[in-house]
Amino acid sequence: MGEVLRGACVIGQSGGPTSVINASAYGVIRTALDSDVITKVYGAAHGILGVMNDVLYDMGKEDPAELELLLHTPSSALGSCRYKLKDSEIDDSDYKRILDVFKKYNIRYFFYNGGNDSMDTCNKISKYMQKVGYPCNIIGVPKTIDNDLLGTDHCPGFPSAAKYIATSCMELYLDARVYDTGMICVLEIMGRHAGWLTAASSIASYFGMGPDLIYVPERVFEIESFVRDVQKVYNETGKCIIAVSEGIHDANGKLIAQMGSDELKTDAFGHKQLGGLAATLADILKEKTGAKVRGIEFSLLQRCAAHCASEVDVQESFLAGKAAVEFAVSGVSDKMVGFERSSNEQGDYVCKIKLMGLTDVANAEKKLPPEWINPEGNNILPAFVDYALPLIQGSPKIVYENGLPRFSRLKKVRAE
Amino acid sequence: MGEVLRGACVIGQSGGPTSVINASAYGVIRTALDSDVITKVYGAAHGILGVMNDVLYDMGKEDPAELELLLHTPSSALGSCRYKLKDSEIDDSDYKRILDVFKKYNIRYFFYNGGNDSMDTCNKISKYMQKVGYPCNIIGVPKTIDNDLLGTDHCPGFPSAAKYIATSCMELYLDARVYDTGMICVLEIMGRHAGWLTAASSIASYFGMGPDLIYVPERVFEIESFVRDVQKVYNETGKCIIAVSEGIHDANGKLIAQMGSDELKTDAFGHKQLGGLAATLADILKEKTGAKVRGIEFSLLQRCAAHCASEVDVQESFLAGKAAVEFAVSGVSDKMVGFERSSNEQGDYVCKIKLMGLTDVANAEKKLPPEWINPEGNNILPAFVDYALPLIQGSPKIVYENGLPRFSRLKKVRAE
Repeated sequence: MGEVLRGACVIGQSGGPTSVINASAYGVIRTALDSDVITKVYGAAHGILGVMNDVLYDMGKEDPAELELLLHTPSSALGSCRYKLKDSEIDDSDYKRILDVFKKYNIRYFFYNGGNDSMDTCNKISKYMQKVGYPCNIIGVPKTIDNDLLGTDHCPGFPSAAKYIATSCMELYLDARVYDTGMICVLEIMGRHAGWLTAASSIASYFGMGPDLIYVPERVFEIESFVRDVQKVYNETGKCIIAVSEGIHDANGKLIAQMGSDELKTDAFGHKQLGGLAATLADILKEKTGAKVRGIEFSLLQRCAAHCASEVDVQESFLAGKAAVEFAVSGVSDKMVGFERSSNEQGDYVCKIKLMGLTDVANAEKKLPPEWINPEGNNILPAFVDYALPLIQGSPKIVYENGLPRFSRLKKVRAE
Repeated sequence: MGEVLRGACVIGQSGGPTSVINASAYGVIRTALDSDVITKVYGAAHGILGVMNDVLYDMGKEDPAELELLLHTPSSALGSCRYKLKDSEIDDSDYKRILDVFKKYNIRYFFYNGGNDSMDTCNKISKYMQKVGYPCNIIGVPKTIDNDLLGTDHCPGFPSAAKYIATSCMELYLDARVYDTGMICVLEIMGRHAGWLTAASSIASYFGMGPDLIYVPERVFEIESFVRDVQKVYNETGKCIIAVSEGIHDANGKLIAQMGSDELKTDAFGHKQLGGLAATLADILKEKTGAKVRGIEFSLLQRCAAHCASEVDVQESFLAGKAAVEFAVSGVSDKMVGFERSSNEQGDYVCKIKLMGLTDVANAEKKLPPEWINPEGNNILPAFVDYALPLIQGSPKIVYENGLPRFSRLKKVRAE
């Protein structure tokens, strides 16, 4: 437990952006601006790099209406980074620099908004400040579309990406089956180590408009059984839609995405394939089945489609940021805000805020529960749908202007 | 001018589906079901193939609420086809078959919902029925995301695809620029012969969140000047987003998408590229600039994203179908319904229905006006934005269930 401090706060955003990371930032910024003990609210340009480079924005100089638009503005409005802090025992120069900037602006609150790696950064800074005896309450605010942070029921960002994926799968299902000819479609979905996002395609399947087969990195991917699975569905129905995680790999852990179709084909008359996993698998299936095969990569679209966000996610993301500030000003430090799933008297889903030790979440990874994957390893079971459905509810309250979303435009006034 | 006839009608959908082709179908079906002179309303399975194969659905057997959901259900609910009728002078067997089925069901109204090729089909059937003296009022209902039908201000389907593209470009703009490192992004957009859809990305640019460079098939694509354009923007800003039509081609008309990066590179140390145009161009730019380059293909998503449709498009598509039936029962035949742009007393956009001869629209193509492309051939001018903005207004009134769009599920009861 840290102290109740009077001073400035800084918020940084880090790692891959999401549709709702700005909703969390707004939760932090709005609550901090309204706080009695927080004297100034700074935004760090490009995460911890903004602190180290002394590029801080004065969030009090922003138009409150523009700040509120952050609720539905995708990507990281303050800019992001993928900078990894060294171990302070080996090289503490970054930490000294951060401490200098903290002292310069009398920063007594630090909020870091990101995934696994960002929680590692947050944890390291927290431990360093404790070691050197600089009073500063430090709280991590989670985000990641990958949903792989340990100890929290789910992560802000995941529900919106899941909703976009399930919605797009339904639409593609209808589109791809429109002709009376054979059709195979391979959908490539993000997730290097965990299959949460790819599993989201099963929500569409549950309602009769989704993939026939789903492959996640929690299981070893075998090209022969994959081709056999697809051929079986295709022979029976003339159509097959397949969802694959970008992170599927062979028994040695080698990514399928890093192999050419040459390497994957038993009959090697092929060519090097650079167009990504979906294109590689489509190429193989084309040759094996003779069908019309299309590979579609959801790419960045799945993490920035704020127009198709889950309003539950938007509100929870905001609350995570708000709670972080409320805990910090009440003296809490060295924690990450997390979510606990609960229900009200009517049995409806309720999300409760909890706290976790930064050390416990930093660098750990949460995978799909094995019992949610079917024994054949080519589909997701309905238990996942039960888990995911409450999270993807509600349409985002986007402000439209000229028929397009009116996203936030911050002035980004440099701190003095 | 045809006769006022009493009898059944059939509607068929043909060509690539869109987010709103079902809204037009609903316009036809609902209006026909409510008509006094139309005795039965049939839907043809997979367009004209459904007529030839005698696979017709009795639309009167559908739940009216499910039919209404067609307004916001993407793809062609009746199924589509890409079947090209032969010239009846050379081989009239298809036409005889169609006439037999028309006689069997006493079909006196035929509505065909599609793009250029479908209007060709519609026109040929219309002329054949005239020739053999079978009274049947035949009207084409336009649809195409490509917006390339002649004589109409715009085509149902284009505004929704344009809205999805502009919205996604804004979201990708924010996402792709999030790090403080160099970034180049190539967006591949549909449009083989006309650049209307790719030009839609310029709406995002107009509001400050879109591509820096835009290439359409109306201009010859030169790889050297393309690389030079990109390098210039990238050197100045460290970022560059580029939108390209799938149909960009060299001076000989050869599609860039059909060339490998080998063929395109002056220094040929490369490899054959199968991942599509965006991947090919990304590969080239990676080598020329050393930057992180990402290729993103909007693929089928851009034509089926009903969740991001333009409500103006939904309503106009419905009206096109409704008008087709109203004209037909009043005796009009051998026409396609088209749109004329007008304005009311307040100067606001108004869409008026007009009629065009099927012969005049069949197989013709409308390209982007040359004066809407900048002299350098690497961007789109604001005149396009003025044209497109009224079309992309309004959010679709999607019915949601379980957090996902509730798309129509037809029973498809076979006609007796």
